[in-house]
Amino acid sequence: MRIAQIAPLHEAVPPKLYGGTERVVSYLTEELVALGHQVTLFASGDSVTSARLHAAWPRSLRLDPNIRDVIAPHMLMLEEVRRQAEEFDVLHFHLDYWPFSTFSRQQVPFVTTLHGRLDLPELQSLFNAFRSVPVVSISNAQRLALPQARFVATVPHGVPERSLASRPPATRTYLAFLGRMAPEKGPDRAIRIARACGIPLKIAAKVDKADQLYFDAVIRPMLDSPGVEMIGEIGERDKPAFLSGAVALLMPIEWPEPFGLVMIEAMSHGTPVIVFNRGSAPEVIEDGLTGFIVEDEAAAIAAVTGLDQLDHGAVRARFEQRFTARRMAEDYLATYLALAPDKRPLTRHRCGSSRAHILERTRGSA
Amino acid sequence: MRIAQIAPLHEAVPPKLYGGTERVVSYLTEELVALGHQVTLFASGDSVTSARLHAAWPRSLRLDPNIRDVIAPHMLMLEEVRRQAEEFDVLHFHLDYWPFSTFSRQQVPFVTTLHGRLDLPELQSLFNAFRSVPVVSISNAQRLALPQARFVATVPHGVPERSLASRPPATRTYLAFLGRMAPEKGPDRAIRIARACGIPLKIAAKVDKADQLYFDAVIRPMLDSPGVEMIGEIGERDKPAFLSGAVALLMPIEWPEPFGLVMIEAMSHGTPVIVFNRGSAPEVIEDGLTGFIVEDEAAAIAAVTGLDQLDHGAVRARFEQRFTARRMAEDYLATYLALAPDKRPLTRHRCGSSRAHILERTRGSA
Repeated sequence: MRIAQIAPLHEAVPPKLYGGTERVVSYLTEELVALGHQVTLFASGDSVTSARLHAAWPRSLRLDPNIRDVIAPHMLMLEEVRRQAEEFDVLHFHLDYWPFSTFSRQQVPFVTTLHGRLDLPELQSLFNAFRSVPVVSISNAQRLALPQARFVATVPHGVPERSLASRPPATRTYLAFLGRMAPEKGPDRAIRIARACGIPLKIAAKVDKADQLYFDAVIRPMLDSPGVEMIGEIGERDKPAFLSGAVALLMPIEWPEPFGLVMIEAMSHGTPVIVFNRGSAPEVIEDGLTGFIVEDEAAAIAAVTGLDQLDHGAVRARFEQRFTARRMAEDYLATYLALAPDKRPLTRHRCGSSRAHILERTRGSA
Repeated sequence: MRIAQIAPLHEAVPPKLYGGTERVVSYLTEELVALGHQVTLFASGDSVTSARLHAAWPRSLRLDPNIRDVIAPHMLMLEEVRRQAEEFDVLHFHLDYWPFSTFSRQQVPFVTTLHGRLDLPELQSLFNAFRSVPVVSISNAQRLALPQARFVATVPHGVPERSLASRPPATRTYLAFLGRMAPEKGPDRAIRIARACGIPLKIAAKVDKADQLYFDAVIRPMLDSPGVEMIGEIGERDKPAFLSGAVALLMPIEWPEPFGLVMIEAMSHGTPVIVFNRGSAPEVIEDGLTGFIVEDEAAAIAAVTGLDQLDHGAVRARFEQRFTARRMAEDYLATYLALAPDKRPLTRHRCGSSRAHILERTRGSA
């Protein structure tokens, strides 16, 4: 298929450091290319991709000090996509509701993955007005707030499979916290849980401007606790060592997590996850198999003592079965084909039998 | 004509306190109704208008603590306008470039007044992409940054004429500063100018969150100076007394002011304006007649000593000739008719001869 991926411009695709949406778009784009599709990626010019890159803005907005109005570059990109729309079989947006008004009035099939939380009150009337626009949720829990929206699929995220064979078996010595330094992510709870268990905690987290007050008032005083180590924001290169050295990842979240990419990243390294039962948690983690789903701090502390029961190989195996980027790409292909069924015969582009097989399989699993 | 006015949702129309764009939309809407047109105002539900109000959001966003995403309500409003577009002869947007992509692909004539500064680098490529979309500037100076845009008119702002007869002649005893407490507006320069002249200064200004640091560090220490009085943010009710009691309004601006509504408000009270030669200043103030245009603080101080030469009655007269809301409405009507020339015969709606006359006159002055 001729597929357009339209990413946010805030971060490069993939992002240099933090940036969940742009990273998922990167994984998806690379897999679609690997599957033989003709993909154009609309993204910032510092993106790196094996697809055709349409640089909708020279560099990612977060790194561009001249940018005051981050909406203008996105509006320009939407217009550029609109003008080229007929060159694609399907348009896949990752820009919330921004494309709805313009693209619901043209003929090329389009779909939008909703990457954020959907329980904001201002989204209610907006989605009342756009009931017929096809959208994809990243968990079933995420959908609950917007029953009026036209969800055509839930496509859980995936990350690249990558062989683990080259790495030595990890010595797992600490609990890990990885994410934004925000109250809803619960770094304070993670510190209390680790201290109660007497196990060291390593915190890899970025501090956003919006969270600086919280960090200074709540977290910084707790960093003096014995066994608590703050290692700052880490990139993709440092994640494997960080995650594979942990006995478990702690996710003491207090918000409706739409997906929680870090959970499957931990699983990809055989690392189980202890997660509060919020949002997507029970759709991602299988209690007693790939981690533990708990209701509060006390239960999380109890869960840590049960980590011995879990098998790291089984955690990795479930990751391979459920959360690879390849599986995500196949799910999306099935979604595209459902929206653009006339593209199914695959006559438009050369393709080997393996790709036809994949598409057939995708179709079956949709 | 059947006219849609589409206002920002940040403030009510008119705003309760500060909010230039929404206030201008209010003046324009009321005048168009008074001229016999059928006007629908798309605005927040706490707006007050004699037009038909389409409440695109229950209340103005600045006063709604539940709103996190201010873009969603605007996107919803744009969609609602799009669905009703055929019910209007012309659509008049006050939402920057936001309507361009959707409305350049439908048939009803539309025009956008650009209320802000246009010299942001991110606007260049955006307006390269939308060269054919008709826009209105509020001064000729404002246009300079975007020569590629399709400016169909410059329509200077206007404010209601209102009789001055009922007010006693003002005793003018101080210099006035009215606006945002921001470095580019120059409250620090105003204080130095007033002190050098030995004339009291009254400051009516709001302090935005973004300007709090500047206020605390630069302005607050200067407020102890003798003769300097800070009276806070004032509403429409307090403005006449504030402006008509001043010997002059000080506008020591250091930015490309797109228009500067407060200048014509001062003029409407016969109050001259001493303004730095930036942006729209020489298009609004006539040097030696309605005020003085100066290059720096030293020249502003010299200008204060020349205020005796100016005649308050002449200042008011020039206001009546050039900057009433009625004149603004007539300018816009001429613009609408140029975009929708088939609406000229006025057969669609009942109208008396006076309205036909007005339209004819507008046509001549366009």
